[in-house]
Amino acid sequence: MSAHPSFDVTLRDRFIAIVGAAHALTDAADIEPYLTENRGLYHGASPLVLKPGSTEEVSKIMALASKTGTAIVPAGGRTGHVGGQVPREGSQDVVLSLTRLNKIREVDPLGNVIVADAGCVLDDIHKAADAVNRLFPLSLGSQGSCQIGGNLSSNAGGTAVLVYGNMRQLCLGLEVVLPTGEIWDGLRRLKKDNSGYDLRDLFIGAEGTLGVITGAVLKLYPKPLGHEVGFVGLKSPEEALALFEKAGAICGTSLTGFELMPRIGVDFTTRHIDNVRDPLTTRHDWYVLIDISTSDSADTAGAMMQTVLEQGYDAGLIENAVVASSVAQQKAIWHMRESMSEAQKPEGGSIKHDVSVPIASIPTFMKEAEAAVLAAMPGARVCAFGHLGDGNIHYNISQPVGADKAEFIGRWREINTVVHDIVRAHGGSISAEHGVGQLKRDELAQTRPAIETELMLRIKRAFDPANIMNPGKMVSS
Amino acid sequence: MSAHPSFDVTLRDRFIAIVGAAHALTDAADIEPYLTENRGLYHGASPLVLKPGSTEEVSKIMALASKTGTAIVPAGGRTGHVGGQVPREGSQDVVLSLTRLNKIREVDPLGNVIVADAGCVLDDIHKAADAVNRLFPLSLGSQGSCQIGGNLSSNAGGTAVLVYGNMRQLCLGLEVVLPTGEIWDGLRRLKKDNSGYDLRDLFIGAEGTLGVITGAVLKLYPKPLGHEVGFVGLKSPEEALALFEKAGAICGTSLTGFELMPRIGVDFTTRHIDNVRDPLTTRHDWYVLIDISTSDSADTAGAMMQTVLEQGYDAGLIENAVVASSVAQQKAIWHMRESMSEAQKPEGGSIKHDVSVPIASIPTFMKEAEAAVLAAMPGARVCAFGHLGDGNIHYNISQPVGADKAEFIGRWREINTVVHDIVRAHGGSISAEHGVGQLKRDELAQTRPAIETELMLRIKRAFDPANIMNPGKMVSS
Repeated sequence: MSAHPSFDVTLRDRFIAIVGAAHALTDAADIEPYLTENRGLYHGASPLVLKPGSTEEVSKIMALASKTGTAIVPAGGRTGHVGGQVPREGSQDVVLSLTRLNKIREVDPLGNVIVADAGCVLDDIHKAADAVNRLFPLSLGSQGSCQIGGNLSSNAGGTAVLVYGNMRQLCLGLEVVLPTGEIWDGLRRLKKDNSGYDLRDLFIGAEGTLGVITGAVLKLYPKPLGHEVGFVGLKSPEEALALFEKAGAICGTSLTGFELMPRIGVDFTTRHIDNVRDPLTTRHDWYVLIDISTSDSADTAGAMMQTVLEQGYDAGLIENAVVASSVAQQKAIWHMRESMSEAQKPEGGSIKHDVSVPIASIPTFMKEAEAAVLAAMPGARVCAFGHLGDGNIHYNISQPVGADKAEFIGRWREINTVVHDIVRAHGGSISAEHGVGQLKRDELAQTRPAIETELMLRIKRAFDPANIMNPGKMVSS
Repeated sequence: MSAHPSFDVTLRDRFIAIVGAAHALTDAADIEPYLTENRGLYHGASPLVLKPGSTEEVSKIMALASKTGTAIVPAGGRTGHVGGQVPREGSQDVVLSLTRLNKIREVDPLGNVIVADAGCVLDDIHKAADAVNRLFPLSLGSQGSCQIGGNLSSNAGGTAVLVYGNMRQLCLGLEVVLPTGEIWDGLRRLKKDNSGYDLRDLFIGAEGTLGVITGAVLKLYPKPLGHEVGFVGLKSPEEALALFEKAGAICGTSLTGFELMPRIGVDFTTRHIDNVRDPLTTRHDWYVLIDISTSDSADTAGAMMQTVLEQGYDAGLIENAVVASSVAQQKAIWHMRESMSEAQKPEGGSIKHDVSVPIASIPTFMKEAEAAVLAAMPGARVCAFGHLGDGNIHYNISQPVGADKAEFIGRWREINTVVHDIVRAHGGSISAEHGVGQLKRDELAQTRPAIETELMLRIKRAFDPANIMNPGKMVSS
């Protein structure tokens, strides 16, 4: 059965001829997985999924799309949270899956780079780096399935941003197929290059709306010799912030993670996630995961962790703390943090926010947001956690116990407005790391300075005048 | 005497009315300093220099320029090396000096940011950071006069890029006046913000061709507690590279500088620069300056330096080495490195290159480039030095002893081609940190992929359709 009887058959066959029939999906059932996303917020339509096997095939697809005005939706591991990978509802958008572009082109430990196809899975990059005793620091819950192209197009963040930065900071060069099918070879390996406008950083984070990223030069780092993970119980985000300040002063760039978690998050994960146990025997309102990595020696990390905890106790910031005594324990603590989003599902509906504020504003923001959410919806269970050191909080709200899930989710926009108004009052971002996609496109257009949206539209039109590159995402054009 | 009798007097007076007569220069002698640059490669023309005192005045200037098609050349500390700050020859370009926009708007040690006007001198930012026990890491030879707006517009590099990155990595947000006079308030303080195309990084490094940067949010860092400077004599760039690898593994992100210098550079500086002495009693063909900064304790840096030197000796990489035993000695060693460009002046003409190659290619590049230069010009004295850890070499060539300076300088383009061909063969950049300006505009347009120049032009036209923003720099449009 054809997925879309109305899609021109001749055109369809011309697209299929580029990749070969074995690498094109036309049956509705085969296409279905490409029409949704993990949170179930979007369900689009598409007549065709193409799986090119080379940059040249991607180029031919875009050239044909450009000639025929066919909209193309690039798809990687499809783990995004904002609907950027989902074709538009009722559309004839063609999905371009990068999955077969999964070759690691080169690993250069001396030059500290990996050159990889966009379809490589993040974990495969980790393994390739590991094999030459190097670190590729991007660390995400979805790393077993998300792909480099998607990581780049969404400027992925994750748990190691504190020292290593977002994906933008981990990429030296790009190969991009433009909407016309032209290939931009920007696969540079240079730490410094001031030879023109920063095209690389324009494509990174553009969610596939300016071109299709097909390859990248990624940075490698020395593998840390020392690694310590601590788990701290404390009173409130205020103490957590003060402890973060101390830890930063003590550890400098060796402070590789500082994650804030509420008691309810620990309850949810210990209740619903296999093999998660509370590392502490005492109960606390808030928790912090401290991750320290040192590259000079294995011992330094332990000494730093001791100093952080001692000074934290002395200053009255810490109620209780434990340091993982094995790699297995380290992983268990991180596993708790990384499954905190997943653990909300069995608790019913969850309204999500991915916000950032200046770090110093976090305690105030948390107080104000909780008060406002509870005023709007008594009984709502705020499970706000995240990268305190980056000012980035996943401000998630689980439904009141016993509430109707559909009714709760129906108030998504209303609750978003409550939280986002407070974020904006603090000069924050309502889209800190997950991006814009379909989910935040209109809210951002309504709330960011008009001139900024105007500049974005000018860029979109300059790169994609026919509006065939992932239309409807990021900007309305 | 008016500088440019042909510039419309009514228009001139309308511009002057915006800033007030006290802040406009119309006399040729007053304007003259704004028409040249340090290397004497360019001499332009201008009828008027305006010194606005606020972002609003900059906005009014651009609005009038936009209405009347008047070209505007933004000027900061005017220390650039590529003619980006010089009005075009025979032009009526109006110079817009940011010098009066020199207020530090806010210093926030808890949030680790400084918000500053674009006209602030870099050293004043250093002092403001210092006063709250923080570090602003951008470190340049010209820091006593260069301005933040110029640092941003040129994506300045310098000697601390190894760990802290270029200016791009040191800036969280921007305020920009667009060619129309509209003000983009992008003064964010967020570590993470994925809410649209990366406009900030497009304006950074755009050399004032897309808008006028008027303010910025700059990142602060904890002040290092430990600091060590070592000076090492060794055989060749090959040993230097091997030592860099070792030092990186030992120090990780505490390796804050790794500068390569040739014997001739040490000769030039000891000969011509006051208070520079060779820190070593033995002579060597090459030298490396090693800078280590630690934030955990003052002692760690010393231990790291010892380990680097011991391992370097043991591996046969180091011929001789000394560690500065006082802050004064540290400064003296850095002073030698920072005056290496200056010290070439008394030796006659100097043909400059600002190139980068992948770090692992540096030894081969150095050999190939020297052979090619000497073949083209026997007796030429190669004084190539720079940021080995960034792959960035200032490949300077002093004239043969006794040669005619003008004749030597006349071969600038020819020698550039010799060196740049080798840079390109290594996948390098011919404009690593100084930018494009007028100096490299045409060579880059001829040698970079055509589609890249095309994308740059589309951006330029989208932002500045009337081509009034620093025309003739960066791109021909």
